[in-house]
Amino acid sequence: MHIKAPSAGLNDQQIEPLDQSLVPQFRALIDGKAKPLGSLGRLEDLAVQLGLIWHPLLPRTGRAAVFVFAADHGLVAESVSLYPASVTRAMVATYLAGRAGVNAFAKASGVDVQVIDAGVDADIPAHPGLIDAKIRRGSRNAARESALTSREASDCLARGASIVVASIDAGTDVVAIGEMGIGNTTSSALLMHRLAPAPLVECIGAGAGLDAAGVARKLAVAERAASRSDATSPLDVLAEFGGFEIAMMAGAVLGSAGRRRPVIIDGFIATVAALVAVRLQPAARGYCVFSHRSAERGHSLLLEVLDAKPYLDLGLRLGEGTGAVMAVPLLRAAAGILTGIADLSDVLAGTLETPAADRQHG
Amino acid sequence: MHIKAPSAGLNDQQIEPLDQSLVPQFRALIDGKAKPLGSLGRLEDLAVQLGLIWHPLLPRTGRAAVFVFAADHGLVAESVSLYPASVTRAMVATYLAGRAGVNAFAKASGVDVQVIDAGVDADIPAHPGLIDAKIRRGSRNAARESALTSREASDCLARGASIVVASIDAGTDVVAIGEMGIGNTTSSALLMHRLAPAPLVECIGAGAGLDAAGVARKLAVAERAASRSDATSPLDVLAEFGGFEIAMMAGAVLGSAGRRRPVIIDGFIATVAALVAVRLQPAARGYCVFSHRSAERGHSLLLEVLDAKPYLDLGLRLGEGTGAVMAVPLLRAAAGILTGIADLSDVLAGTLETPAADRQHG
Repeated sequence: MHIKAPSAGLNDQQIEPLDQSLVPQFRALIDGKAKPLGSLGRLEDLAVQLGLIWHPLLPRTGRAAVFVFAADHGLVAESVSLYPASVTRAMVATYLAGRAGVNAFAKASGVDVQVIDAGVDADIPAHPGLIDAKIRRGSRNAARESALTSREASDCLARGASIVVASIDAGTDVVAIGEMGIGNTTSSALLMHRLAPAPLVECIGAGAGLDAAGVARKLAVAERAASRSDATSPLDVLAEFGGFEIAMMAGAVLGSAGRRRPVIIDGFIATVAALVAVRLQPAARGYCVFSHRSAERGHSLLLEVLDAKPYLDLGLRLGEGTGAVMAVPLLRAAAGILTGIADLSDVLAGTLETPAADRQHG
Repeated sequence: MHIKAPSAGLNDQQIEPLDQSLVPQFRALIDGKAKPLGSLGRLEDLAVQLGLIWHPLLPRTGRAAVFVFAADHGLVAESVSLYPASVTRAMVATYLAGRAGVNAFAKASGVDVQVIDAGVDADIPAHPGLIDAKIRRGSRNAARESALTSREASDCLARGASIVVASIDAGTDVVAIGEMGIGNTTSSALLMHRLAPAPLVECIGAGAGLDAAGVARKLAVAERAASRSDATSPLDVLAEFGGFEIAMMAGAVLGSAGRRRPVIIDGFIATVAALVAVRLQPAARGYCVFSHRSAERGHSLLLEVLDAKPYLDLGLRLGEGTGAVMAVPLLRAAAGILTGIADLSDVLAGTLETPAADRQHG
């Protein structure tokens, strides 16, 4: 499958803000369920969010897919990563072979895996699990020049959106996003620095496992890149500091929100993509479900900036969508609060109906 | 299905301690996987635990079942709960109808639900999803007399164990435990007080939603019950302060550990049952997976006593096994670290094999 940019620009796509006036109605619905008030804690908040997203329909969460966007980064020429760029293509092969972390975790959570070549610096053979959306073999070195052109950045947004929209239109209920790209925590830190905004030093972390000297070098490279441009508009910042996979993930967020579907955000890099999307279209925020708190420095502050409280805190820092897929069962449980639990009044009156479908499996 | 106590007493059943000398071997196995070192955080620790439990086999986690033990409590005569005892039987009917929180959450996590009448104060009609293990219609009022006789307490341990052992022998890979019993946070607080041990005031919480006056009354009742007996041996304490469902859950923990299977512990009450099991047979601790931190007061301290760090912290306080079933996907993901992720050396050498079975679904 090869994806071209659709003719309509993404900024033309309207995202409908969630109707917050419906919150009391969903709270009352949940409070009437057969359980003590508030006893499902934060999953009740998630149920309200899902109710708002799907309104006037009931939430569906059966078919979930994680989209793993992969690309290379010109910044690796500056020695910002523990691993060589060739690891990006090797991991793409691993996803396609079904043998990476995200595959194991997706299997555990009942989630399909889609891999997107967003700009890997290699020719990747066609594969049924691969979506070829490549614009260029790797971004340019952001320490020296714009990582992407403006046109490339716009194309990424449109392609990322069209990939998830096509999947939603084919029946996907829940979208999750993750990534692979050696060097992409540096690119993400630059985007966060400019769009959060936040001091660069608070955005730079160990990535895949740099030591203190490595982090210091990475910070110096990022400072050099940041000093090259004073862009602050989201699209300009995206082009300056790039990441084809990050830009496409931002598009995926916008596409999912535009189709009124929840989009589960993985760790630091995916959250940066969500930040880009929200800065472009603030209404997208309501459709984002922030899955987990990554161990990567910068993620906690970024979550605060987005007013997000993730559901899992397991010290994950792999990326690939591994944290996002682990939130899918939580989403399904939250939807089940609305759709599966009887009303307390029916329980006490002894007038429960037993749906045949529910009887077999819990 | 009606369960009788097996002839062999449970204390005869040996639980094999986990072989901690194998930990470095499992750490090395995980460190060799295609991911940055330590990047799967706490799920790597869970993977090690599963590895030790299943050694020398690889962990299996496909078939998971939650066992919801229900019983009534004589203590409710002392007005320790917000709800009347009749809610216990109404909720049992709801589980059997597939319309309670645990049913919705179990469906979200791919877990089967088994309901056990451990001592509900009602005649519950036979149902394919119900295991009748009732010894008595409700425990005695622990504020005035022993909740259970010593024989009843022993029978509960044996029945709880035999229920999960039968299920494991029929193919269940993962056991989760939960409960329903109006009044059972008071019974649990007394057990924790004596077996942790901990001051009673730190063990008493709001349960299903008592206000401050209700909590004070509950504490006064518990103090009266505690002053009635100075028992400290686990079996005596269990009989004094009871709970048929709590005692059977303790048996379930011992039964699962005896069969070398992980047992996922739900919230406050299930954790008290795990405490009883561990005080009876310390080697059982290694088989327990503590799923979540409940909002019920007492749970955090109890987890500390058991040196347990739960995986989820979502403010759940429903019981029923709702938190335990939400940890099942985490368990499956952790097992997948050992069984599903390729070795980094194979990824870098390009010598990955693609198992046909994995290809379809992530």
